Amino acid sequence: MDLSKKTRIIPDFPKKGIMFEDISPILQDPDSFEHVIFKMVDYYKDKKVDVIASAESRGFIFGAPLALKLGASFVLLRKPGKLPYKTIRHDFEKEYGTDGFEIHTDAIKQGDSVLIVDDLLATGGTSQAAIKLVEKLGGNVLSLAFLIELGYLNGKEKLKGYDIFRLINRE
Amino acid sequence: MDLSKKTRIIPDFPKKGIMFEDISPILQDPDSFEHVIFKMVDYYKDKKVDVIASAESRGFIFGAPLALKLGASFVLLRKPGKLPYKTIRHDFEKEYGTDGFEIHTDAIKQGDSVLIVDDLLATGGTSQAAIKLVEKLGGNVLSLAFLIELGYLNGKEKLKGYDIFRLINRE
Repeated sequence: MDLSKKTRIIPDFPKKGIMFEDISPILQDPDSFEHVIFKMVDYYKDKKVDVIASAESRGFIFGAPLALKLGASFVLLRKPGKLPYKTIRHDFEKEYGTDGFEIHTDAIKQGDSVLIVDDLLATGGTSQAAIKLVEKLGGNVLSLAFLIELGYLNGKEKLKGYDIFRLINRE
Repeated sequence: MDLSKKTRIIPDFPKKGIMFEDISPILQDPDSFEHVIFKMVDYYKDKKVDVIASAESRGFIFGAPLALKLGASFVLLRKPGKLPYKTIRHDFEKEYGTDGFEIHTDAIKQGDSVLIVDDLLATGGTSQAAIKLVEKLGGNVLSLAFLIELGYLNGKEKLKGYDIFRLINRE
């Protein structure tokens, strides 16, 4: 199945000059969505995955099914102020201003093998924040999985030394 | 499995007087999370579910796996400005100010049987907005599924006439 033709490109969203890649057509087609999860499971099924960590909110869409299939713990990375228990926080710069993510302090144990799952690898800021949070709690980042990599944005540069799996690459 | 003891109550979050029900312990325990999805699948497996619609962001955690298991289309209800394609919007009142959700206009077809999935039924405002959006697009709301109902908040009152399935009820 060629997933690369199943997204919908929305020009100038959320602002002029950005070609937004809408994944709704994949989610709305059960065969396509199933295929995404199947391919991710296939890549990780023989690896040791203790924890899957996903950033809100689109990361949850892929992280949750994958955690269930792999029998891994599912952990949320959320915007500041959303997680109710004790958290640690990591801020990062975006094009305009800063953004941040939090994780519960008991979400990851020392030595856990952690897979970070998100829908999109763009500039890599979110993924870098996810890595920092996982590592601060003593987790080992096994790999990062994405549905789409926007290769032309060079997000991979920020993730050097980490294993990356993605199903669609936009060069 | 008694899921009702698997959540974690956080007093005074997000503000004084609220006993917040943290579902992280369920998500972090693969057996518990699997059990939630199993029970939901069991309830809906012989019913016709064309579409599963979930509100961001915790709704995605349960809606996505359920859509995959039931072979249904998965549709996102998001905060205004997040969905890239043509949308319709429904605003509703919250304790302080108003909130709103949007859905893509092509997310649901006339006559589709739609299951709305969320983590929590509290006052019912989000669920009511979800119903309005689904029905505006011509969908039939088959049922609403939740992990937890805060029965003492009477959210069910707002959802009269609709089938409701939930795994945990706090009277």
